[in-house]
Amino acid sequence: MQRYFVSPEAIQDGRVRITGDDVKHITRVLRLQPDAEVICADGTGSSYRVRLAELGSDQVIGDIVETLDEKVESQVKLTLVQGLPKGDKMDLIVQKGTEVGVARFVPVETNRTIVQYDAKKENKRRERWQRIAKEAAEQAHRVVIPEIDEVTSFTKWLTQEASSFDLVLIAYEGESGHGLRAVLNKRIESSINPPRSVAVIIGPEGGFDQQEVLLAEEKGARAITLGPRILRTETAGVVAAAMILYHYEQMGG
Amino acid sequence: MQRYFVSPEAIQDGRVRITGDDVKHITRVLRLQPDAEVICADGTGSSYRVRLAELGSDQVIGDIVETLDEKVESQVKLTLVQGLPKGDKMDLIVQKGTEVGVARFVPVETNRTIVQYDAKKENKRRERWQRIAKEAAEQAHRVVIPEIDEVTSFTKWLTQEASSFDLVLIAYEGESGHGLRAVLNKRIESSINPPRSVAVIIGPEGGFDQQEVLLAEEKGARAITLGPRILRTETAGVVAAAMILYHYEQMGG
Repeated sequence: MQRYFVSPEAIQDGRVRITGDDVKHITRVLRLQPDAEVICADGTGSSYRVRLAELGSDQVIGDIVETLDEKVESQVKLTLVQGLPKGDKMDLIVQKGTEVGVARFVPVETNRTIVQYDAKKENKRRERWQRIAKEAAEQAHRVVIPEIDEVTSFTKWLTQEASSFDLVLIAYEGESGHGLRAVLNKRIESSINPPRSVAVIIGPEGGFDQQEVLLAEEKGARAITLGPRILRTETAGVVAAAMILYHYEQMGG
Repeated sequence: MQRYFVSPEAIQDGRVRITGDDVKHITRVLRLQPDAEVICADGTGSSYRVRLAELGSDQVIGDIVETLDEKVESQVKLTLVQGLPKGDKMDLIVQKGTEVGVARFVPVETNRTIVQYDAKKENKRRERWQRIAKEAAEQAHRVVIPEIDEVTSFTKWLTQEASSFDLVLIAYEGESGHGLRAVLNKRIESSINPPRSVAVIIGPEGGFDQQEVLLAEEKGARAITLGPRILRTETAGVVAAAMILYHYEQMGG
């Protein structure tokens, strides 16, 4: 069944109001008729089976037939802190990360970030990432659209945000001793397990410098390797996310 | 240190002969001089530290200084049997799969394959995938270049090849009961564990039809889900590979 995200405010008194581009998709692309059914998710975790009632040119109104209980979201809330990569690689990271189950993306500028920050383009870029996340979330049958933070400095994130996570991991090639599995297994004996929130930090193309890794460790992050094969920056986050969620039985048990 | 793949025949009597595009890369791009060192891997598992001796316009000769013992290849040989996807998605699958550690790619035509097979283009396409695999293997610091089979029919592969693997998995959305983890854990009690060779089968955009899944199961494949979030075909193989290799402690322990 076709899926659409609507805002929580678009759901009232058992009815759903679909607006924007989705109207065209329903009426022109799929050419649905009254009584056809779709799934509407509010992007914050609730989803509904909806029977279409009124199909207009600028809105579609439907009646909620059933509140769904789709267990698709990871119980471990995973945040990907990504050193801003070159070109349009962040598009791929947001799309694939959303499919795998990342809850939030934080693009950060690091000491070796090559991309020049451009405040003018910033809003447009973030809008594009948010659109990619929405489309990927629909396609993946997720009921939550991942959040995408504004680009921020890595140091600032470490100082202000890192402490709010149950577990913070930083992928660092220089670190050869600590595999992801060993670090995650070690936690079993300690604190909250499984963690409710995990942040995994991935460097840009040039990686982190040692100072950044030291600061991250000072702020509680644990340095991990993602294995003996060197992953490109746009691969590392998605692969790390898959392994972390697999470890905590969030990839289908 | 810069890495290059050479053919096993290019290594003789303690010397390595580098030819092809890599000559230009050494002399024009990196502008290396005699006595500079590089790593040469023969693509089948051996690698060497090599000191450059003679830099010509069509070949570079170097002396082997040290035979390296790089433990980068997975002990579980993983084959990705991939339903041929649309567009250039196979490029991405080969690149990312190589980074993660796939040993062999088998592009297959299935009942729902949309791509029209074109014998003329076939050779060119396979050469391109092989080149992508080589470049990705160099970048990932692998010592083996993954093999890429000719495009074959899925039924033929199941009939002729599937039985040669210790474990064959087929990702199937219709299967809701068996998570990857449950299937892999169940094997602990049985047969060879960890398996020496695993094939994971991923459908094209439209997935498999039920007949194909039944035939696969008849041939010994186990149907698995990759979790509640639906992965695109070009994401599924890479994510499955990461999870399988992680399970068998081949992603850095």
